[in-house]
Amino acid sequence: MRIGFIGLGNMGAPMARNLLKAGHQLVVFDVVDAAVADAVAAGASGCDSCRAVAVADIDLLMTMLPASPQVEEVYLGRDGVLASVGRGVLLIDSSTIDPFTARKVAAEAARQGNPMLDAPVSGGTAGAQAATLTFMVGGELSAFDAAKPVLARMGRNVVHCGASGNGQVAKIANNLLLGISMIGTAEAMSLGVALGMDPKVLAGVINSSSGRCWSSDTYNPYPGVVENAPSSRGYTGGFASALMLKDLGLACDAARQAGQPVVLGALAQQLYQLFTSQGRGRLDFSAIIESYRRTSSHNG
Amino acid sequence: MRIGFIGLGNMGAPMARNLLKAGHQLVVFDVVDAAVADAVAAGASGCDSCRAVAVADIDLLMTMLPASPQVEEVYLGRDGVLASVGRGVLLIDSSTIDPFTARKVAAEAARQGNPMLDAPVSGGTAGAQAATLTFMVGGELSAFDAAKPVLARMGRNVVHCGASGNGQVAKIANNLLLGISMIGTAEAMSLGVALGMDPKVLAGVINSSSGRCWSSDTYNPYPGVVENAPSSRGYTGGFASALMLKDLGLACDAARQAGQPVVLGALAQQLYQLFTSQGRGRLDFSAIIESYRRTSSHNG
Amino acid sequence: MRIGFIGLGNMGAPMARNLLKAGHQLVVFDVVDAAVADAVAAGASGCDSCRAVAVADIDLLMTMLPASPQVEEVYLGRDGVLASVGRGVLLIDSSTIDPFTARKVAAEAARQGNPMLDAPVSGGTAGAQAATLTFMVGGELSAFDAAKPVLARMGRNVVHCGASGNGQVAKIANNLLLGISMIGTAEAMSLGVALGMDPKVLAGVINSSSGRCWSSDTYNPYPGVVENAPSSRGYTGGFASALMLKDLGLACDAARQAGQPVVLGALAQQLYQLFTSQGRGRLDFSAIIESYRRTSSHNG
Amino acid sequence: MRIGFIGLGNMGAPMARNLLKAGHQLVVFDVVDAAVADAVAAGASGCDSCRAVAVADIDLLMTMLPASPQVEEVYLGRDGVLASVGRGVLLIDSSTIDPFTARKVAAEAARQGNPMLDAPVSGGTAGAQAATLTFMVGGELSAFDAAKPVLARMGRNVVHCGASGNGQVAKIANNLLLGISMIGTAEAMSLGVALGMDPKVLAGVINSSSGRCWSSDTYNPYPGVVENAPSSRGYTGGFASALMLKDLGLACDAARQAGQPVVLGALAQQLYQLFTSQGRGRLDFSAIIESYRRTSSHNG
Repeated sequence: MRIGFIGLGNMGAPMARNLLKAGHQLVVFDVVDAAVADAVAAGASGCDSCRAVAVADIDLLMTMLPASPQVEEVYLGRDGVLASVGRGVLLIDSSTIDPFTARKVAAEAARQGNPMLDAPVSGGTAGAQAATLTFMVGGELSAFDAAKPVLARMGRNVVHCGASGNGQVAKIANNLLLGISMIGTAEAMSLGVALGMDPKVLAGVINSSSGRCWSSDTYNPYPGVVENAPSSRGYTGGFASALMLKDLGLACDAARQAGQPVVLGALAQQLYQLFTSQGRGRLDFSAIIESYRRTSSHNG
Repeated sequence: MRIGFIGLGNMGAPMARNLLKAGHQLVVFDVVDAAVADAVAAGASGCDSCRAVAVADIDLLMTMLPASPQVEEVYLGRDGVLASVGRGVLLIDSSTIDPFTARKVAAEAARQGNPMLDAPVSGGTAGAQAATLTFMVGGELSAFDAAKPVLARMGRNVVHCGASGNGQVAKIANNLLLGISMIGTAEAMSLGVALGMDPKVLAGVINSSSGRCWSSDTYNPYPGVVENAPSSRGYTGGFASALMLKDLGLACDAARQAGQPVVLGALAQQLYQLFTSQGRGRLDFSAIIESYRRTSSHNG
Repeated sequence: MRIGFIGLGNMGAPMARNLLKAGHQLVVFDVVDAAVADAVAAGASGCDSCRAVAVADIDLLMTMLPASPQVEEVYLGRDGVLASVGRGVLLIDSSTIDPFTARKVAAEAARQGNPMLDAPVSGGTAGAQAATLTFMVGGELSAFDAAKPVLARMGRNVVHCGASGNGQVAKIANNLLLGISMIGTAEAMSLGVALGMDPKVLAGVINSSSGRCWSSDTYNPYPGVVENAPSSRGYTGGFASALMLKDLGLACDAARQAGQPVVLGALAQQLYQLFTSQGRGRLDFSAIIESYRRTSSHNG
Repeated sequence: MRIGFIGLGNMGAPMARNLLKAGHQLVVFDVVDAAVADAVAAGASGCDSCRAVAVADIDLLMTMLPASPQVEEVYLGRDGVLASVGRGVLLIDSSTIDPFTARKVAAEAARQGNPMLDAPVSGGTAGAQAATLTFMVGGELSAFDAAKPVLARMGRNVVHCGASGNGQVAKIANNLLLGISMIGTAEAMSLGVALGMDPKVLAGVINSSSGRCWSSDTYNPYPGVVENAPSSRGYTGGFASALMLKDLGLACDAARQAGQPVVLGALAQQLYQLFTSQGRGRLDFSAIIESYRRTSSHNG
């Protein structure tokens, strides 16, 4: 299949490479020239604009962009994809953005005869490289069926979440809960240790009880409890706190637009804001537990 | 074995019955006469005071009481257990109380030659009846080893959590995380549905992703998602919101005494306070999701 | 002076009337025909579009619109003000919107030679009618000086807050603190009364001590404490909870864009969201104290 | 008058000195010998126990102690005041403690014929030295009338707050609101400055608008806004963050016992806990604004 691919950052670049490995022809663009050059070296055809990708006789177009404004510009801008792409070409946006923008762009695409899916991912850069991502997909079932074989070359789970925008909804709802669970785990572990428990024993109790969660049993923020977790290697790698802050912001913003309360979610967003504004946004999001550690010179 | 048992409420009564079934001799007391009468009908010997139980030539004494003041009175009061029980009798308190009080009472007991364990449970009245409770136990390992066979007749898991008080620490740390996770799940499910997702599909995505937790995969608060959960039977049965409020209060209080922040935990405690003060404390704690449902006549 | 006025809602209509009373000529437009008809009956010239107002040989243009999207459309839209208004005409937007949008629109205006001020108000509909509003104004000092005599016919205080957008910043910062103080007052009053104090005595102590604030001494949410406050007339009139929710949303959103934590502010926003989603958005914002009252059938 | 005085710390010592200056005879005790010696040097008679003070033929007894456990011990302990003081001696406790303990001790005192008042103060060590404290007094009106002339030598305002315990209620309700207002002011100032406003201009707008509060107009946490505030001298002097944390803890604890939600209050308590556990508990409580300042190397 001949596939257009726009957005070759930390996530997009390895995803594109996996499509090449699967035997697809790729036509690519990124605002960073070196990213295009790398993809060309791996076998892709390079372009110098979104428009050039859109008109390159492609069957399907994927995008992987930082945030809503870029998605709006790439699809709806004067020289954007919708202004030039052939009718019927399937469009897939894997950026993590707010569901309202996703729905607006998809509606515009549908109006001119282009089926469009929102398909944000989880799994991080490691998952992108290993082709083990999860795709949460919103849009028409027929479009989903057409896209699935392609997405399956880049990920292990490809889940249809319902109508347009629902891929984004599933992602922000999951990450809302993830952010809350992680802070909750950090508080439970910190409290237990402050009151005299061994962290591994405490994690063992929680993991076989009703407090069990992914943040505790797979990704425990307390150093030394889970061997391969970022907490056991100085909170490097993993999912940056600044990205968790972004996703919690998307969740709170979507909640506001929907008139839906998310009380713990809003506080979790603020705690990541406090943490990030202390210069620690690059640390893995489980490092939030450091907010709960006392300094040696505490008084009170 | 000849066992004293004080406190025959909703939890204590079935626990005592399970000890009788296991062939132990029981000497019991409760401030409610009818509770004693029921136990006597089931084969126990009834007493009319704590003191009478303590002096009844027992090998081991269990207590299951509502809160710290009762534990202090039963053990440390003028006519309490410590004033009359024989040296060497093993004491086990299964009440859920703050760890500082548990440690204080255990230290008093140790001073006069009585090993003592704190052994709070999880599993609710259903677990007490079916003898499937989990016991989280704090105290000397030798005492734990001696107690384990007895506790195993009332529960499925008997976990040693370390020194005195650590059973309480494990329980409140777990329930702190549980309360937070439940509200987080309620928010994530409510937000997803408000933004257009099917609740079962959303739960499916979360349960196979990083938001996975007991509150979502086993006890989902959204009606109809988990067939046997309280949410699917009008939030009856289960673990009352008023009890979750009590446990979060214990956690916040212990945190304050330890100078340990628990930011989400304190907010979770307040949300259960709001919910309970609206007259809904008897509902299962997953009913907190009702705080997030909008009334039909909303405006805003 | 010949003044254009776009937006004749609850606030805009009485403001326009005060300009007419002051002897100014008014050229008006609103999307609601009846609003235009009312203004014409009071002496204004009616128009059927923004464009018609913009080209009607005016010296100054005021707008009073619901939110950012309307401001963007009225000023930047294809048939909007900037596309047709004469160079040099002073533009004043009194809508309450986010400062980033205010700055973007003002920068566009400046680019084509139109000085522009953001001038949101406080004082409510009562202040608009009585010409006692406060104007918080952002923009060049020369433009402020030119605008001041006109604004002074509609308000009592006209404050220069600095550069473009700062009128909006001042308003959302003040209302952020106001929302927090109001909930804080509601909590302090509710707690004091729950613990046995007379509400008037408690308010008296607070108002002469360090808890003193406008929400306590002028607008106390507890019924009967301040005679003329909305709390003493069933929370009617005043400043609607739904509008406080909107302003807190603007504050949280601007904070997110600036990477600035506002922890209590985010929680206050959520508490107003909970309150509004229960169908009480039309009540005065001091009615939030009702969240803290217990129902008769509480248990816990 | 012959007055007993127990507790000569930072607050008690200058209060006792003001009673001496007023011509009263003082009989004093403190667990710190040097504190007694200082008072003796100033003209008091020193004692070596509470009991010795209680039996020293006094007309009135004042206490100024750190927290509830000390109050319980001094009054209710085996060698405490109630066990030895003459019937009819008026007892005044100026410690800041929870109202439930205050009521319990006062009820014990009343039972044996000693009228008792709770009379916590505000005004800090500066107010204690200058005799400008505010006394918030709970107890019988006749006892209040008898105490007032004595209290008036140590403070400027002596307010009767109603029945026993209400002095404590008034104090914790005021300080609950104070803690919330201070953080609210810190957030509003930080947000305004982050969005480009001058702090003095912003404070000016707030202080003449609905955000006005003592924390903004008298004690503004932003350095340089209020000349004599602790924020303008490095947050030294004033009211320590660790003490605000204690008072918020009392408020949250009393709220829990009363089943009363205090949502912002609980979060304020946590924010002061975070701040104090970073080793900054000795700074004035307005230093909480430092939590909202970004480090130079922030990313996010």
